[in-house]
Amino acid sequence: MVIRPAQHWFLRLLDWHGSVLSKITFRLSLNIFMSIIAVISYQWYEQLGIHLTIAPFSLLGIAIAIFLGFRNNASYSRLVEARTLWGTLLIQQRNILRSIKTLLPNDKIYQKEIGQLLITFGWCLKHELRKTNPAVDLYRLLPLSILEDVIKSPLPTNRILLHIGLKIGELRDKHLISDVIFQGINKDLNTLSDVLGGCERISNTPIPFAYTLILQRTVYLFCTLLPFALVSDLHYMTPLVSVFVSYTFLAWDALAEELEDPFGISANDLPLNAICTAIERNTLEMLDIKPLPRPIKPDKYFNLL
Amino acid sequence: MVIRPAQHWFLRLLDWHGSVLSKITFRLSLNIFMSIIAVISYQWYEQLGIHLTIAPFSLLGIAIAIFLGFRNNASYSRLVEARTLWGTLLIQQRNILRSIKTLLPNDKIYQKEIGQLLITFGWCLKHELRKTNPAVDLYRLLPLSILEDVIKSPLPTNRILLHIGLKIGELRDKHLISDVIFQGINKDLNTLSDVLGGCERISNTPIPFAYTLILQRTVYLFCTLLPFALVSDLHYMTPLVSVFVSYTFLAWDALAEELEDPFGISANDLPLNAICTAIERNTLEMLDIKPLPRPIKPDKYFNLL
Amino acid sequence: MVIRPAQHWFLRLLDWHGSVLSKITFRLSLNIFMSIIAVISYQWYEQLGIHLTIAPFSLLGIAIAIFLGFRNNASYSRLVEARTLWGTLLIQQRNILRSIKTLLPNDKIYQKEIGQLLITFGWCLKHELRKTNPAVDLYRLLPLSILEDVIKSPLPTNRILLHIGLKIGELRDKHLISDVIFQGINKDLNTLSDVLGGCERISNTPIPFAYTLILQRTVYLFCTLLPFALVSDLHYMTPLVSVFVSYTFLAWDALAEELEDPFGISANDLPLNAICTAIERNTLEMLDIKPLPRPIKPDKYFNLL
Amino acid sequence: MVIRPAQHWFLRLLDWHGSVLSKITFRLSLNIFMSIIAVISYQWYEQLGIHLTIAPFSLLGIAIAIFLGFRNNASYSRLVEARTLWGTLLIQQRNILRSIKTLLPNDKIYQKEIGQLLITFGWCLKHELRKTNPAVDLYRLLPLSILEDVIKSPLPTNRILLHIGLKIGELRDKHLISDVIFQGINKDLNTLSDVLGGCERISNTPIPFAYTLILQRTVYLFCTLLPFALVSDLHYMTPLVSVFVSYTFLAWDALAEELEDPFGISANDLPLNAICTAIERNTLEMLDIKPLPRPIKPDKYFNLL
Amino acid sequence: MVIRPAQHWFLRLLDWHGSVLSKITFRLSLNIFMSIIAVISYQWYEQLGIHLTIAPFSLLGIAIAIFLGFRNNASYSRLVEARTLWGTLLIQQRNILRSIKTLLPNDKIYQKEIGQLLITFGWCLKHELRKTNPAVDLYRLLPLSILEDVIKSPLPTNRILLHIGLKIGELRDKHLISDVIFQGINKDLNTLSDVLGGCERISNTPIPFAYTLILQRTVYLFCTLLPFALVSDLHYMTPLVSVFVSYTFLAWDALAEELEDPFGISANDLPLNAICTAIERNTLEMLDIKPLPRPIKPDKYFNLL
Repeated sequence: MVIRPAQHWFLRLLDWHGSVLSKITFRLSLNIFMSIIAVISYQWYEQLGIHLTIAPFSLLGIAIAIFLGFRNNASYSRLVEARTLWGTLLIQQRNILRSIKTLLPNDKIYQKEIGQLLITFGWCLKHELRKTNPAVDLYRLLPLSILEDVIKSPLPTNRILLHIGLKIGELRDKHLISDVIFQGINKDLNTLSDVLGGCERISNTPIPFAYTLILQRTVYLFCTLLPFALVSDLHYMTPLVSVFVSYTFLAWDALAEELEDPFGISANDLPLNAICTAIERNTLEMLDIKPLPRPIKPDKYFNLL
Repeated sequence: MVIRPAQHWFLRLLDWHGSVLSKITFRLSLNIFMSIIAVISYQWYEQLGIHLTIAPFSLLGIAIAIFLGFRNNASYSRLVEARTLWGTLLIQQRNILRSIKTLLPNDKIYQKEIGQLLITFGWCLKHELRKTNPAVDLYRLLPLSILEDVIKSPLPTNRILLHIGLKIGELRDKHLISDVIFQGINKDLNTLSDVLGGCERISNTPIPFAYTLILQRTVYLFCTLLPFALVSDLHYMTPLVSVFVSYTFLAWDALAEELEDPFGISANDLPLNAICTAIERNTLEMLDIKPLPRPIKPDKYFNLL
Repeated sequence: MVIRPAQHWFLRLLDWHGSVLSKITFRLSLNIFMSIIAVISYQWYEQLGIHLTIAPFSLLGIAIAIFLGFRNNASYSRLVEARTLWGTLLIQQRNILRSIKTLLPNDKIYQKEIGQLLITFGWCLKHELRKTNPAVDLYRLLPLSILEDVIKSPLPTNRILLHIGLKIGELRDKHLISDVIFQGINKDLNTLSDVLGGCERISNTPIPFAYTLILQRTVYLFCTLLPFALVSDLHYMTPLVSVFVSYTFLAWDALAEELEDPFGISANDLPLNAICTAIERNTLEMLDIKPLPRPIKPDKYFNLL
Repeated sequence: MVIRPAQHWFLRLLDWHGSVLSKITFRLSLNIFMSIIAVISYQWYEQLGIHLTIAPFSLLGIAIAIFLGFRNNASYSRLVEARTLWGTLLIQQRNILRSIKTLLPNDKIYQKEIGQLLITFGWCLKHELRKTNPAVDLYRLLPLSILEDVIKSPLPTNRILLHIGLKIGELRDKHLISDVIFQGINKDLNTLSDVLGGCERISNTPIPFAYTLILQRTVYLFCTLLPFALVSDLHYMTPLVSVFVSYTFLAWDALAEELEDPFGISANDLPLNAICTAIERNTLEMLDIKPLPRPIKPDKYFNLL
Repeated sequence: MVIRPAQHWFLRLLDWHGSVLSKITFRLSLNIFMSIIAVISYQWYEQLGIHLTIAPFSLLGIAIAIFLGFRNNASYSRLVEARTLWGTLLIQQRNILRSIKTLLPNDKIYQKEIGQLLITFGWCLKHELRKTNPAVDLYRLLPLSILEDVIKSPLPTNRILLHIGLKIGELRDKHLISDVIFQGINKDLNTLSDVLGGCERISNTPIPFAYTLILQRTVYLFCTLLPFALVSDLHYMTPLVSVFVSYTFLAWDALAEELEDPFGISANDLPLNAICTAIERNTLEMLDIKPLPRPIKPDKYFNLL
């Protein structure tokens, strides 16, 4: 995710990183190329009785804009939902730890064990969603007794949650907490399970492929034919206007595609590393363990992973 | 559901499967046919004083696009809601099993029995929604004592839920769990009931038929008359532009119709088999039963059922 | 609600029932009549310097389409909310009955009494929303002791809910269920109360009347003036195009009005009879009482009440 | 709120009350006046080389319509949320009273005291939102012991809620209800607190003022310049078309402004008096106290306050 | 946030404060400047065959309006969510205090201590969101024992919540409240944690930067080229129409940017000081502590911070 500091509006217009410009450069070049062909060959094909006007393209462009708006809405909703789920993860980890600290203020061992498991749950979910290997983080964070069981599981994130549950069950078995309290914390674990299941759902279920396909076909064809529709009115100005219109449509299309999978590592995806570090910082701070890891900062292109 | 691997944008445009193209081929051909008639007969009917211009079609096209956008929104919401309900099913099955494992860590029999019932609930719901016969899955998964009762019920999915409830009630009667814990698990069963009722609601209540009817009438008539409105400006280019505009409108209309019933087996519907298998995998993994069934993969057309 | 079987798309276009065509026939005829006047009188009033062009109507038509889209959204949301509330009713009735069966598996009397009250709650709510007399259903379903109290109440649906509550309170007084369990079932009754209150809210609070008024005024005036704006371009084709555009706008307006009150009995309203019967079937099936009433089927016009 | 009986669609168009026409009469008159000026002065200022065409106004009008649609959505959402909160108030009052009647079926004194406080809560909230003096209703409904404390509080609605809480706490102190039950009813009181806080939020936080300002500036300027853009095409028809377009835009703007504060007493605001009376009727009916107050009916202009 | 008293609609149009006009003055001046250049140089560059028409700008303008509408929706949703979270803070503080007063009616010390912590939580969250130093408010409100711990924490708001939790845990340890009651209040603290986490999420996660970038590029370029597209039709009227269209687009863009971070101190942001003071007033009033702080009023520019 691009985290941009305040910037003069004029400088911002020239920005390259964080925009989707890099993804559509080729298609924009193609559009300029088609425009030049249109300007050059205009008089020749007009003589053949081939003629395009802007009116049907106006109708089509507005219809496409409406459909693009719909798809952007769908993509953006996924991003917002994914971000909210990760926000809930942080909230829930704080809640569980606050409950444990309130109920067992002097039992530092349990506090730390549960805190550690909560931190690992976040990192492991990140690895699951980005399809990377969680081993390094599991080795770093889990006690050996649990590590073995988690590392060989095909579904490690859910397995960690099960271990948090077993830990809470242990407290109940030892009569450190009553059934009422157990039930309350168990419900908080259910919320962690909602986060896990919700993220998996977003990750596994793309927006129906046909939406992408229909829109891209119409957008690309629209941009390709547009110069020929503009040239009879605009002559030499055709490339300028054509590339401008194309930029608007292609950039929105490219952005919607990028937002569709919010767990990637492109410029507009969620900064899962930064969130996991924030969770780790919060947990350790609540456990009074120092020093805290430093919060992750954006790199020089303002990118936060 | 089409699960498409990353693909070059140009190749994607030529894709056939997963789009709705196959459904609208005939209507697009009809449109080309009308365009050719328009080009041929143009001069003749102009002499009769019959004349169509693009201006009213521009107004109409934009209005139709707005209404199509609305209907797509409604259809897509149904898909998202249906997917979320199935996601909740997986989450809830994990939660119930985690609670049981936490509360009765050594009672493998109850763990397995309840796990088995949860798996069956998913498969049976799938059969109910797709109107297929659940018998094979019921025989495969249920113990004989319950099988008999479920198989003769006219509402088997709800019957399975009742049996899960009775099993939990049994735990309470045997004083293995207290009333507080019973109440907590019972609430989780209520959530399964929400999933069941929610899916039935989506399946039984289509979007008001009049929306479909009004839109299709106007879209089809619009596409049919369009060539005659374009021909005076575009002459030989009429078929190209006309089929392009028609594709945009017909494809969106066809997609909205396809998404309306998310429980079908067309290219943009939910992969219920894959989800049920994921639930089965999760349950067995939590119960440490091996080997796990393999996750279902998309077929060679990238289709996941 | 019209429940239409799969149908060839061409046949569907000719459909009459289930569309709103019957409601706007007069206004469409009026539009044709105005078009003919426009064609006939065109040359005469042009000489008087009276002139209308399509450009301002294009702007106006698109603005009206945007506002119509907004109102349709509002109407459709009401339909969806109403349907969800009735879905919750079915879910909640299943949940309460499952809890009772789980907790008191052998107490058939209480199971049946509570089941009966739940069925009655649904039918009575239906009568309240459709403003029909609930007496027949009350006599059919309620035991005499309760019947008397309900039938003389000015708010019978809420009174039935109170009786369900008293029945649950009785179980608690007799120490058949503990306070924890009582509290759980009481919460389920609160959800029934949400359904009751939610349906009353939708039924009593229409969409602000001014929305309907402003839109209908502009839509009707727009359709009336449209032929005079089209005639200078389209001549003899004016009636065709004018009635086509008018159909699009009038049909959407009429449909939004029809959906506004989802509890009526027109072609796009909720099939409350069918839902109440489904609730009755589910309850009796869970109580193993036979025979079940038959599910209500659409009539020959595909109408389900 | 205007509650209009079914009416022939033609008569409805002539309706005056309940529309926003009265609010925009002056601005519409101004528009007619400008149109006449445009028609008269047209030839003169054209000679000066001053020329306006409809094309840029078409673009602008559609953009404004899109933004108006957005603002109407925001305003309407506030109305719906406010109505839902008041619906929750009625539901919650029924729930609390049902719980009390179920738990203490013979303690008529407590039933009545709590019922009375619930009724007062609604009326007092109404007075707070409409900024009227609650004294009359407080004197009518509260017992003297509580009255004194509430009437001198700067935040009387919240104070009444505190008294309901204290009453429930009293039941617990006297061991008439257990902690579990207390907790359940306390949660219902939290929901009343949600209603109170939610209504205060809507009432205190308008839609950002800049939305209103930007839209009204552009709408008014648009309507003022429109005649000059229309006159070259439409000549004598300019006033008719101009006032028609202006009505569409001004009426939507005026309605959005009216809906923004749903607790007022204009024609499209919530009928708080009627809802409070409904709450009172429901409470007394559940307590079997007679006679019930009559439900409030719309006045002769169909206005329900 | 601008809290504007009722005002004549005409005066309102001239308003300067509270609008975003000040932010776009320069860009509007630039637009006038470009318009004048267009009028002056028009004939010269037309001779060079350079020609722009309004048709493609019409298409582009409408597409941009649709995308602007989408972005405004996203920004406004953030504002509404942020406001709702702060509303929940007030509601929850009332609920917790009401519970404490109900359960421990005579223990004024605990009531006051918890009340004080709740007030501090709000002020500290405000400082966190506005990135100001909370020290003054912490010194003013916290007892020394807690102050020390909070002031040295890198995450003070969450630390205060932990202290509220520990205070509730103390009540449980002293057997002043049972586990059931503890669980209920602990859940209310979880809701405070939701508010904290939700506000942090909104504050840390901007709308994807690319949305802002793409829109601003297209809006600015659109406004810059517009005069050249208008001039051939409008001549001397170009500056007027061009600046009018530009105002509409630039103002909406500027407002969406302003709303994106609702916790700032610009004219359309949330009045966090006023809300914190309201929370303080409510708490003290419920504790019968006098005098209450005065509610914060808008300054002479109607600005409420």
